[in-house]
Amino acid sequence: MAILYKSEARRGAEWARVFAEKRPDLPFYIWPETGDPAAVRYMAVWVPPDDLSEFPNLEVMFSIGAGVDQLDLSRVPAHLPVVRMIEPALAAGMAEYVVWSVLSLHRQMPFYLQETRGGGWRQQPLREAEACRVGIMGLGVLAQAALERLAPFGYPLSGWSRSRRAIPGVTCYAGAEELPAFLAACDILVCLLPLTDDTRGMLNADLFARLPQGAAVVNAARGGHLVQADLIAALDAGHLSAAVLDVTETEPPEPSDPVRTHKRIWLTPHIASMTGWRSAAEVVLANIARHEAGQPMDGVVDRSRGY
Amino acid sequence: MAILYKSEARRGAEWARVFAEKRPDLPFYIWPETGDPAAVRYMAVWVPPDDLSEFPNLEVMFSIGAGVDQLDLSRVPAHLPVVRMIEPALAAGMAEYVVWSVLSLHRQMPFYLQETRGGGWRQQPLREAEACRVGIMGLGVLAQAALERLAPFGYPLSGWSRSRRAIPGVTCYAGAEELPAFLAACDILVCLLPLTDDTRGMLNADLFARLPQGAAVVNAARGGHLVQADLIAALDAGHLSAAVLDVTETEPPEPSDPVRTHKRIWLTPHIASMTGWRSAAEVVLANIARHEAGQPMDGVVDRSRGY
Repeated sequence: MAILYKSEARRGAEWARVFAEKRPDLPFYIWPETGDPAAVRYMAVWVPPDDLSEFPNLEVMFSIGAGVDQLDLSRVPAHLPVVRMIEPALAAGMAEYVVWSVLSLHRQMPFYLQETRGGGWRQQPLREAEACRVGIMGLGVLAQAALERLAPFGYPLSGWSRSRRAIPGVTCYAGAEELPAFLAACDILVCLLPLTDDTRGMLNADLFARLPQGAAVVNAARGGHLVQADLIAALDAGHLSAAVLDVTETEPPEPSDPVRTHKRIWLTPHIASMTGWRSAAEVVLANIARHEAGQPMDGVVDRSRGY
Repeated sequence: MAILYKSEARRGAEWARVFAEKRPDLPFYIWPETGDPAAVRYMAVWVPPDDLSEFPNLEVMFSIGAGVDQLDLSRVPAHLPVVRMIEPALAAGMAEYVVWSVLSLHRQMPFYLQETRGGGWRQQPLREAEACRVGIMGLGVLAQAALERLAPFGYPLSGWSRSRRAIPGVTCYAGAEELPAFLAACDILVCLLPLTDDTRGMLNADLFARLPQGAAVVNAARGGHLVQADLIAALDAGHLSAAVLDVTETEPPEPSDPVRTHKRIWLTPHIASMTGWRSAAEVVLANIARHEAGQPMDGVVDRSRGY
């Protein structure tokens, strides 16, 4: 019985130490080393090996990321549970990023930093937090951590998700029918959706047109959610005021990509949230223990939904 | 009996509406209009008129800012109470700015935005909030609002002030003797001190040398606290990693001032905190009511301390 890890090597070395300490009975292999393929019961991967049929006794596929869109689920045998990463450091990092983005946009920091660099000193009227409505699309663990950190600032908060959620202090909208009402009440829209066939390209011209004049957008989910040309058109037309992006359609984007150079876009290199290496290994160990005890694991993906 | 306002005209017009509504018996003049100078009992000013002897019946001088360093207290007759602005929107705005600055520095956003603009996509190891110690100098109303907003993120918090304070969840240091211990434990140092003869130029080479290697600095107080050349030297030497400044020695700084163009400095044009126009007028009205009732006003300046 063994676990096979396939992702970044430095992180793998840290996981190997955690596993050696906590589960010395469970050999830990870092791809391309696999040991005896028939002994591999678990995989922890960003993207799995091409030919999974080499591992006939595989029982669980763990994603090392919060999403599983980087996995081609159609290539993972249907009987195999796929488990995404639900880990405290991931939620804390995302909450930091979302609060930072919202404060940056609410307080017009992209404008101000450009103003001072350019020799100016213009001040804009201050909009109080109570007049700056923040809406989050996607209401999973990461969004809930972000909403909790945003609440003390006094922003009116709303959220939208596919199926209805109830979060204290947050006006919750659900489903395609309620999307226009949600969007019409977002001065700052934050995308934290999972990337699925339903959500790909969702941040597009039609959606932006439903946001109030002067609204701002944050995408800290996946580059595939956003139609970049539509964002740039909405910024250039003055309908949207600014955007903060952590992800792009292809990463890294070309050096000349306008998403890097547009004066109303702040781009960060996919750093919004990163799993704590040690704590992520411990989350996988806890799920393995649940699986061995015949208990349900935390974060099992519903393949019909794609997350 | 009248009140004379002397500051920005647009804000004055808003105050005039609030006073007309709430105290129609108290005429409100916007400088240079004064009405009968002998009728002026109150002034609300950024900087008072040169010759205060023209207003023999003046009873209270209100500052429209949180600080009074812009007033030359020596020119204000000693019997006249000087009252600074303690106003909820001012504290909320400062808390937003401090949290934004701390998140920007903790998450290395000045580095990342420069990286993506320049064509790069390098990611740095993530430092958890628990490993990023934040210290605030000056522990008045604004600092306490900022500390309250920082606490949920998990930053280890400390504070330093002239006289000892006790704030739950914050390690408090006091006086010159404890300053070195405070500084040695600040990965991010935030200055919110009042500007007095004691604190002028306090953010200098000696102080920076006592901060840990790689520390970052926020100045959201007054430009006079900071020796800009010392900051730039400490950044260029690599001892400090970055700085966020909202104020400068002279405002606005020259277009060529390195404080605008240095790649490790983010400068905003004195926008960290602005009084809500209406709520500030209401704070002054409430203090006038206290004064008329013979009760102590909120925010009376202790001239021996200078704040």
